[in-house]
Amino acid sequence: MNSEPSAVIPASHEALLQSNAVAVVSTVGPRGEPQTSPVWFGWDGKVLRFSHTKARQKYRNLVRDPRIAICIIDPANPYRYIEIRGTATIEDDPTKAYIDVMSKKYTGNDKYQGNQPGDERIIVTVTPAHVNTMG
Amino acid sequence: MNSEPSAVIPASHEALLQSNAVAVVSTVGPRGEPQTSPVWFGWDGKVLRFSHTKARQKYRNLVRDPRIAICIIDPANPYRYIEIRGTATIEDDPTKAYIDVMSKKYTGNDKYQGNQPGDERIIVTVTPAHVNTMG
Repeated sequence: MNSEPSAVIPASHEALLQSNAVAVVSTVGPRGEPQTSPVWFGWDGKVLRFSHTKARQKYRNLVRDPRIAICIIDPANPYRYIEIRGTATIEDDPTKAYIDVMSKKYTGNDKYQGNQPGDERIIVTVTPAHVNTMG
Repeated sequence: MNSEPSAVIPASHEALLQSNAVAVVSTVGPRGEPQTSPVWFGWDGKVLRFSHTKARQKYRNLVRDPRIAICIIDPANPYRYIEIRGTATIEDDPTKAYIDVMSKKYTGNDKYQGNQPGDERIIVTVTPAHVNTMG
């Protein structure tokens, strides 16, 4: 469980967390090396969430080491960004509900079109423990 | 020195490395945790470079552990990206020449406008050792 204190999101960057920007997620690989890739994300005012499958390296990384850093850049202004660091918690998403929420947010489709046979979906939740902003 | 073999950049994503997208750089912090932030970058067909100052956490991270991951998302298509992983080499840039190259690329100004008194500029060079792409 994530028992870290929650960091405050500056009002200046709250809108970026409500935006349709993609988030770039960084995790630590099996040899302690950084790895990074983009995800769709949601923000409810307190925690950031994204959907993933168990087949991906990022899932294995987070099971091993739940520390995570997330960078969201304003698509309209690349000099403006927020970095959120924290500890990820993972829960199963057997109905694949959260990827549909993301599909709706990012594509307008109620149902995610990219599910593959055998996909095991999870929801990754990050409470901001440390926040950096620019712009 | 970086003695890793160089990974091949897929022709499909070469243009992204020539683009004005910003790169999101991931490094590993003092407690082995991931950290991430955007940078201006240049690509010469073989290595990726960016300018930084010695005052920043990213510099201290790379001195301690030169492993780095870089994510570049196509601004015109957020489902298209390239991740480059490798080992960073660092050199001093006493004339601050490379941040001017970046200024020219990203802003059109021959001279970077953001130098602060006492800034010690470095050039970080990354030879791709491992490449992932999507889109």
